[in-house]
Amino acid sequence: MTDLLLKNVRVSRADAVDVLVRAGHIARIGPGIDAAADALVEDGGGALLLPGLIEGHTHLDKTNWESPWYVNEVGSALTDRIDNERAWRASTGHDAASHARALALAFLREGTTRIRSHVDVDTDAGLRHLHGVHAIRDELASRVEIQTVAFPQSGLLIRPGTAELLDQALAQGADVLGGLDPSAIDRDPAKSLDVLFGLADRHGKPVDIHLHEPGELGAFTLDLILDRVAALGMQGKVVISHAFCLGGVDARRLDGLLGRLAALDTAVLTTAPPSRPVPAVRACRQAGVTIFGGNDGIRDTWTPYGSPDMLARAMMIGLRNDLRRDDEVDWAFDCVTGAAARACGFADYGLTPGARADLVLVDASCVAEAVVTRKPRRLVVAGGAIVARNGQDAIA
Amino acid sequence: MTDLLLKNVRVSRADAVDVLVRAGHIARIGPGIDAAADALVEDGGGALLLPGLIEGHTHLDKTNWESPWYVNEVGSALTDRIDNERAWRASTGHDAASHARALALAFLREGTTRIRSHVDVDTDAGLRHLHGVHAIRDELASRVEIQTVAFPQSGLLIRPGTAELLDQALAQGADVLGGLDPSAIDRDPAKSLDVLFGLADRHGKPVDIHLHEPGELGAFTLDLILDRVAALGMQGKVVISHAFCLGGVDARRLDGLLGRLAALDTAVLTTAPPSRPVPAVRACRQAGVTIFGGNDGIRDTWTPYGSPDMLARAMMIGLRNDLRRDDEVDWAFDCVTGAAARACGFADYGLTPGARADLVLVDASCVAEAVVTRKPRRLVVAGGAIVARNGQDAIA
Repeated sequence: MTDLLLKNVRVSRADAVDVLVRAGHIARIGPGIDAAADALVEDGGGALLLPGLIEGHTHLDKTNWESPWYVNEVGSALTDRIDNERAWRASTGHDAASHARALALAFLREGTTRIRSHVDVDTDAGLRHLHGVHAIRDELASRVEIQTVAFPQSGLLIRPGTAELLDQALAQGADVLGGLDPSAIDRDPAKSLDVLFGLADRHGKPVDIHLHEPGELGAFTLDLILDRVAALGMQGKVVISHAFCLGGVDARRLDGLLGRLAALDTAVLTTAPPSRPVPAVRACRQAGVTIFGGNDGIRDTWTPYGSPDMLARAMMIGLRNDLRRDDEVDWAFDCVTGAAARACGFADYGLTPGARADLVLVDASCVAEAVVTRKPRRLVVAGGAIVARNGQDAIA
Repeated sequence: MTDLLLKNVRVSRADAVDVLVRAGHIARIGPGIDAAADALVEDGGGALLLPGLIEGHTHLDKTNWESPWYVNEVGSALTDRIDNERAWRASTGHDAASHARALALAFLREGTTRIRSHVDVDTDAGLRHLHGVHAIRDELASRVEIQTVAFPQSGLLIRPGTAELLDQALAQGADVLGGLDPSAIDRDPAKSLDVLFGLADRHGKPVDIHLHEPGELGAFTLDLILDRVAALGMQGKVVISHAFCLGGVDARRLDGLLGRLAALDTAVLTTAPPSRPVPAVRACRQAGVTIFGGNDGIRDTWTPYGSPDMLARAMMIGLRNDLRRDDEVDWAFDCVTGAAARACGFADYGLTPGARADLVLVDASCVAEAVVTRKPRRLVVAGGAIVARNGQDAIA
């Protein structure tokens, strides 16, 4: 792999710099860098340089990306959507791998180079979806880093056999263990969490729990989760996805929960849905809680919405949290970059020497403008290779 | 003006039809229409045909559209934003007309052919902004229909001289009289509303009141407004913009307010902000209240967000109201088409013979897909003339 020298790019409003990429990593960043004679030199045209974007929570295995439009006629209860999807997959033979691949490449085209994808594990599908997504993970590894979360979408205790499947999933290389509403879905939160954390502990894997439970119920479950984080010493290894309860309790209760989350280095993932109570970015940051962002499902049987452009998700986080000042929009951007890397444990991340060379160029004067205008990415470099130009795949 | 025959387009999932446009209006819609020999014939390629989109609430005079990025460092109180804007306009010499024009043309390119724009009237600027927007309104009249609302952004009673300016504004052709938080800003709601409705009644003009007041305060003010709608017989002539209070009162109070709004044919405008309580589209529709949509400001000193693509606003309305089924997304679309025309009184609207020929083609199988994917408009026809193709201005 020859060196890549990216000339004339800007980091925020600072003067233009150059970036030297060697062996897939950032070797130097600074003004006036010279390259070896055989280096590939690319003029950045003064565009804004961003680190590769991060999708912190999606479901690659559920998407219909690059399929004909799915006509949504589904009921509105969580169980309606779970049951509809399982039936639809069985009747249509939905191929998780091919759609996952199409969506992952769409992410890459928009500058996203790391993805945490939940993947359904249930007693109907077994590990089929996981095997599909793992094949894509391996195929695309040099360009986009995909973390898989073995996710019991249909419940853990309520569907006997699921714990054993999750055990196999972790043994077969799932990166993270997922959980789902231990109270509302599993109906036995203490036991559900004991089974879940027991599995994670035995495999030495991180945990990511989808906690949709509202208000005081969710807060109760969250405390049970945090008890186990403390007992097992899993600080820095656990993510609470959605955490709607943090948007639905009073100020004193919220302070207590945020304090525990910060002390136990447990991160919060928000999709910033406009129609639900959500954890507030400002409050989390002030309390020292890492909060980061993701889409959740993208164009699947659950929702028609979502986009592989993580700047669009940053914008939604900004809108949901009423972040209007440029310095506030930067917080939303952090949710799909640095904070997401910390929370998910994506290594070698950022615009620093030694980091993996995941670089995005966009025409904007500053991060806030990039988030709001979301222009096609002028250039995307992933693992040191140019993979897209102006929103189109680059020919290698 | 020669006839235009638009061939092979689809209205929702139905079979392809043709549209004959004569003298700027729709003459016929149906299968297999033949045109006169000199007609301009355009192949729609089976794309989805939408009526011209409607922006129901924006501020053309505030935007920085097509300017360098405005770095937002403004405080978060409503009065911070009002004061900042007035000071910024004075110090920069912001030219409302040129930016309004640029934004109106951007709207047109995305298929929006009718716009209700609030325009600030205050004792600093006088009628300067209104004159600027009226010049644009007149210049662009054959393509985009702009309604102006004379809007006391800095307050009515609290800035003596404003009522006189509003009186002049209406005399000089402002289409609608605007109002702003009679309790929270003007501090004397009964008197403020008496002055406002007195002006509207004298000029025979409709009213559009920005009501940000939350919860029971907003509900109190709303009742005062509706008393005056009833007393003056202004059914069908009044819009309550924002109406955040409808998202912040209990179910019984809400039922009462929606019942009065429906009985008095008073419409509600929502921008569907993700960070505020909002009137619910579902509840309004069920109660028989017309609810429609708009951006509010677009890329101005108040907010970096907003877009001249009204399909994006429909998507936001869908997201804010958790509208996921295709038939629910249709409600969001109605907010930027039929419902907006009814609420604002835009005449000759729709995909029916006799209506002004405002036509939009987009590649999508159905309205829900059009809203979610928001592809560049394949063709925009405004007042019978082709004005844009594939998101670019068409050369006449």
